Order: sequence, then structure tokens, then C-alpha cells
Amino acid sequence: MNVHLLTIGDEILLGQIVDTNSAWMSRQLNLNGMNVTGKSSVGDTAADIVSGIAHAATEADVVIMTGGLGPTKDDVTKKTLAELFHTPLVFHPETHARIAAYFEKVGRPMPPSMTDQATLPESATVMINKVGMAPGMWFEREGKVYISLPGVPFEMEYLMSMEVIPRLRERFALRPVVHRTVLTAGEGESNIARRLETFEDALPSNIKLAYLPALGQVRLRLTAQVEHASEEQALGIELDRRAAELSELLSDIVFGQGDSSLEQVVGEILMAQNKQFGTAESCTGGYVAHLITSVPGSSKYFPGSIVSYSYEMKEKLLGVNMATLEKYGAVSEEAVVEMAKGALDRLGVDVALAISGIAGPDGGTPDKPVGTVWMAVADRNRHVAVKQLFGRDRLKNIQMTGTYGLNLVRKFLLREV
Amino acid sequence: MNVHLLTIGDEILLGQIVDTNSAWMSRQLNLNGMNVTGKSSVGDTAADIVSGIAHAATEADVVIMTGGLGPTKDDVTKKTLAELFHTPLVFHPETHARIAAYFEKVGRPMPPSMTDQATLPESATVMINKVGMAPGMWFEREGKVYISLPGVPFEMEYLMSMEVIPRLRERFALRPVVHRTVLTAGEGESNIARRLETFEDALPSNIKLAYLPALGQVRLRLTAQVEHASEEQALGIELDRRAAELSELLSDIVFGQGDSSLEQVVGEILMAQNKQFGTAESCTGGYVAHLITSVPGSSKYFPGSIVSYSYEMKEKLLGVNMATLEKYGAVSEEAVVEMAKGALDRLGVDVALAISGIAGPDGGTPDKPVGTVWMAVADRNRHVAVKQLFGRDRLKNIQMTGTYGLNLVRKFLLREV
Repeated sequence: MNVHLLTIGDEILLGQIVDTNSAWMSRQLNLNGMNVTGKSSVGDTAADIVSGIAHAATEADVVIMTGGLGPTKDDVTKKTLAELFHTPLVFHPETHARIAAYFEKVGRPMPPSMTDQATLPESATVMINKVGMAPGMWFEREGKVYISLPGVPFEMEYLMSMEVIPRLRERFALRPVVHRTVLTAGEGESNIARRLETFEDALPSNIKLAYLPALGQVRLRLTAQVEHASEEQALGIELDRRAAELSELLSDIVFGQGDSSLEQVVGEILMAQNKQFGTAESCTGGYVAHLITSVPGSSKYFPGSIVSYSYEMKEKLLGVNMATLEKYGAVSEEAVVEMAKGALDRLGVDVALAISGIAGPDGGTPDKPVGTVWMAVADRNRHVAVKQLFGRDRLKNIQMTGTYGLNLVRKFLLREV
Repeated sequence: MNVHLLTIGDEILLGQIVDTNSAWMSRQLNLNGMNVTGKSSVGDTAADIVSGIAHAATEADVVIMTGGLGPTKDDVTKKTLAELFHTPLVFHPETHARIAAYFEKVGRPMPPSMTDQATLPESATVMINKVGMAPGMWFEREGKVYISLPGVPFEMEYLMSMEVIPRLRERFALRPVVHRTVLTAGEGESNIARRLETFEDALPSNIKLAYLPALGQVRLRLTAQVEHASEEQALGIELDRRAAELSELLSDIVFGQGDSSLEQVVGEILMAQNKQFGTAESCTGGYVAHLITSVPGSSKYFPGSIVSYSYEMKEKLLGVNMATLEKYGAVSEEAVVEMAKGALDRLGVDVALAISGIAGPDGGTPDKPVGTVWMAVADRNRHVAVKQLFGRDRLKNIQMTGTYGLNLVRKFLLREV
């Protein structure tokens, strides 16, 4: 079953916002057995919307539109849909009551523009939006389905998850897709692909392997379409076996399975081992602490960090010897090991990560070019230090260092280094 | 002159990557007097590419394709373009020499797949890619222009800036667009729009105002198309005047002009005032330090930070009184003021920002709900403290606090608070 995603709105064409909705929608639709065969964007005029829908429907069974539904959009999308599907716009009491109840709850008067939000095409099946104002709408014509959703990401995500996907699966009698995701860090997509050549060749045709790369990380997703309800369990077992085989082949770079992030996995290990963790950061400037604390509940294992950007702060806050810094430089094995030990002491933690490097764009030397980063992890008994050479882009260097640093902590905690 | 952007590649349709290219391209094309009237994405097959190009060309004078050019793509895009434009694929010695020189320079053998990269459609005007392997290609047919670019963002950006935009401007004899951007922080798009109603109504029809929102920030962009070369200077003066008027109207929220970020502006003020700055962060967990240090050269004014997530660290690293924490809680005016003063002392800086709040999703109480954040800025002579109430999303709360905190520092340095 083929889906076309159509975003409506000048803000997309003008480049004022990046369209993150359609990547999210594609992944969810894929995992539920639907193929996204095309995506397109059109402006806010009736003519653009009509021709956009016509183009979208040529190749797809389902057209999902996002955007163009806000109270400031003059309702052009809704009017256009009503005309296109030959149905009048009518007052929808349920939607009006829901919006009125919201404004009563927050104690503000309901703006007049909100009444228009409760005016909907009569033939549309209304999908209730419990996290925002504009509801979703579902139309059918000549065997094809046309869906209109608000463009606000969390409203779209709510309606997709709670309404659109369940309804589409029922409408097209779709079998579920079984999937397993294996998470890796520290190796690029093309190297992983080389290591998995034999594994991939041996995959049966009903199992697909996808590479989902991010900075310093690649998620490997195995999916299989369930053709008959009776085979779902067997396919799940088969995918578990393949995922285990894949994890074994890549055991040096696999850090988890499923939807976790590296910072979540590190947090889970810290909690399981009942250890407190902290960082001493130079070139990453607090970015690793930010990653760690982006996980809810991280205060259980993370009391704090020291960002020591200058020599003086490395000495004063972490107790690094000025002589070490002067002899070896701040970007050296000697300096990061002292920083890690200083963090153990000053933060009173069980495990510490220290980072010092040259993020760029300036500051490189012939033997320590921009992108050179030293990292050390230490506890009371031992430490490991590694050097990495990243690229020339400052922000990418900081982000890659974050991934590599957290992965080093993970391996240290599991005694893999 | 109308442009259609066409992305080629299954990775976009599968949602494996978010398409950030087309927003960047749209903004650049707009600023150079071109209208993006549509965007679409197709898969990696010849049939999809052919129908994608046909659709794109119906409404546009120029079709810019990205993606589908890498060495692992089996050259389907290139072959398809050669067939579509009735031209053979021929060996391109210049491109081959450039790729060979790169591999010689890095001391690695040139992979066989790279030879294909130097095979190009004969009738294409080749646009040299100095930052990657795959060159850009320019075709013309029946008055329309078809451009193919690699999908790697910095390669695409290089070719757009250095080749595509200058060539398009010449080919279509485009007049430049004059623009001014005013940067604001701390107020939402709809409130700003209300404040600018009279200003917008008074704008002449040749000047457009666009709102470019991000978390806690809105960039306001004034643009005017130059119709005759003689009027360019006058239009620039007119836009300067309008931008000044706009900045005056929004003086409480404007933090700069042009392409700067808030963290850059704060850094420039610190350098101009010859002041050292540091942070004491609780709920932001190092995020503000990360923002500050994402600016190249920030070591000139930023020696370090303390992330104090626990009561103990607030006491030990910043000298906050445990009695204060116990009496008022860590999320209180009293606590953040002590944290800011502690940071002045322990980091030895001239100005410090302290932050303590409840990022969520848990930890809220009836009088301090999730999203409550206290911030304080202090120097040796004075301090200011403010409370903000953000939302329920942990990461958004952290990011919004970063924007508000940096803006508070900016106002404090300029004695606006």
C-alpha cells in the first residue's frame, strides 16, 4: 500500500522551517507495513493545494497532508478540501466544545478565530486532536484515502499514532511489520556495511536491513513483513536470532537494542552498578554533561561536572599540575588522566570522564591538528585513555567527541576496555 | 523565476534522514531573487527519477536535484539524466585527475568505484566540486535548466554558493534581493506579530517581512527585490531605516542583527567589555556552557563552568549554604543568587549566570510545577534574578532556559536589567 506525504505551507517553501515531520511519518508508516513512494510540498494557495493533491494521488493509495490548518492560515486548506470533495463546511459541536473547554480550563477567553477551527467539511471523518486545536480529517474518494493533519509536530505525532495508523491498518487490512533495532557507536556506515556483507547476503528475502546513521552512531534496523497472522511469532523469533547474530558480529561497536540512546544506556549501567558519574570537560565545554542530563532521572547517578576551559581552571578546579600542562600541553594523555582523577576527587564520583581536544577551527599544530581529542575514563582502581582524530568542523567535533566519550565510559563500566 | 527542488533517494522516503538541504536551499534562492514554488522527493529508480523531473518541470523554470550521486548508488541518477537528455556518458579527465589527486594526497589507493564518478553525461556543464568527489551538473532543454548536485550538505552548499546561484543569476539576469535581519529572543511569534501590526501595514508592497522562529527566538527578515540596478543603494538605505524602526519597536527583545547567534552576541559584548564569564548550572546540566563554547574563540572570555546537579555539589563546588537549600529549595531566588556569587568566586570570573529549575518530566510540586526555572546573573557589584515558567517537555525546557539565560546575561552586561 503506497502513501504520498504532502506538506502544505509557504514556510516550508521559503525554508523558514525544516520539515522534520515527514521523516518521522515515513519511519512510522514503514514500520506498519506501508510504503512512502513520494513526498512533496506546496504553498498556501487553493490552486497549489489542488494540484498538489492531484499529483500526490496519481501514484498513491493514501495521501497524508500536514500543515495549513492553523487559525492564522485563513482556513484555505479546509475550504479547498471541502470544495475538492464536494461537501459543505459545517459547524462541528464536539470540536467546538472541546476547544471551549480548553480555554475555560486555562482561564482565558476563547479568541473568535477559534470558532473557525470547529467548522469542518461535512463528509470528513473527524479525528479528535486531544493535544491541540485543529482536528485531523479523513476523506475517501474512488478507493483512495485523503488525510489532513495539523503541522505542529507533537499534534501530528499524536494523531498519526492514535488515529491514522490504526485506521489505515484496518482499512487496508495490513499485517504488522516485525522489527528489531541494533544500536552501534564509533564506526561509519560504509565500514559496517563491509563487515556485514556476508550477513546481508544470507538474509532471506523477507527480512530487510536498513542503516540509520547519525553523528558517530549507526542504528541497524531489521524488518520483516508479516504475511499471515500465524507466522508473526515465528518471524519475531527469527528476527531475535538475526539481531543476536548481528550484535555478535559487531560486538565491539554495539551498545544496545531498541529505541535507547547511548546516554540512556550509560545511565542504565550506572544505575545497575550503583555508581555515581561525572565529567571534566575542556573542548566539549559541557556538551557531555548536557547529554547525560538530557535523560530524565539522571540526577540519580550524576551529581555534577566541571568544565575547565583554561589552564587555570584545570589546575584550580581539578587539581591538574601546571607542570603537566606546560610540559605535555592540555591536549595530552597526561593531562586528561590527571583531569579524570581530579574529577573523581573533586566531584566525589565513582567514575569520571575527562576530555581535552582541539575543536577548531583554529588552534591546531602540525603534531596536534584540529580535531585531535584525548579522552580518559577513570575509577579508583584504573584508567584508560584514548586519542581520536576527528575533522575540521567545530560543532561536529564536539558532537562526535560526545558519542565517543560516552561509548568509552560504557565500555569501561562493562570492563570491555 | 520559479525553482522546484527535487531530492532523490530512498533514504529520504524511508525517513532515515531528515532533509535539511532543501530548507537551506530555499532560503539562499529566496535571498537571490528566486521563488521556490515546489519541493518533492522520489526514490532511487530510473522510473521515479524520470517522473519526478517531469512533474518538477511542469511549473518551474529551474529544477535542482540533490542526491543519488554517491559511488554506492550505482549511478542510476547519472544514467537516467544521460538518457533523458539524449547524451552519452563519457570519461571526464579533469574530474578523474581531481579525484586521483585527492587519493594521492591522503596516501590511499583510489577505489575502483571512483572511476565511475569521473564518467559524466557529455552535454552537461560540469560544476567542479572542490570539497568532495561528485561534481555538479547543469543541463538545458527547451529554455529550462536542470541541475544535479550531490546530497552531502556541505558539498551541496559549496556548489550552490560558488556555482549554481551565480550562474542562475546570470542566466536569468536576476536583480539582487536586499535584506536585513533583526534578531529577537524571549517572545513568541504571535505576540511579535501583534506588536508589529501597524509597522507591517505601513510597509510598501516591495518590502516583505518574514518570521523565522526557533526555540525562544524569532528572526525577523526584511527583504526587497531590486527591480533596477540604480535603485539598489536607495533600497538598502530604506531597509536600514525600516530595520532600525523595527528594532526600536521591539527594543526590549532585539539582541542583534544579521547572521549572529545569541551566544555570539554575548561573546562579542564580553570581549568588548574585557570580561570573563562562567556559568553555574543545575537543570540545564552544562547546556549553556555548551552554547557559549560552540562559538570559535570563546576561550578568550570563558574559562569554565560548574555543573552542580546535586545539593552536595552546590554546597561543595559553589559554596551554597545547605541551610538555604533546605529552607528555600534548590529552585529558588535565594539558591540561584548564592550559586551565581559562588561561581564568581570559584571560577574567578567577572560575570556569572546561575540556573536552577525543574526540567521534568518529574519533580514538579503544586507551587513549583515542571518548567519552573530560576536564573540569576551577578557581578561583584550587583545581581538580578528572574523566574520563568516553561512547559512540560524536558529538552525544550533546557533549550528555552539556555536562550532566556543568555539573553539575561546580555541585558545585564548592557545594564538593561
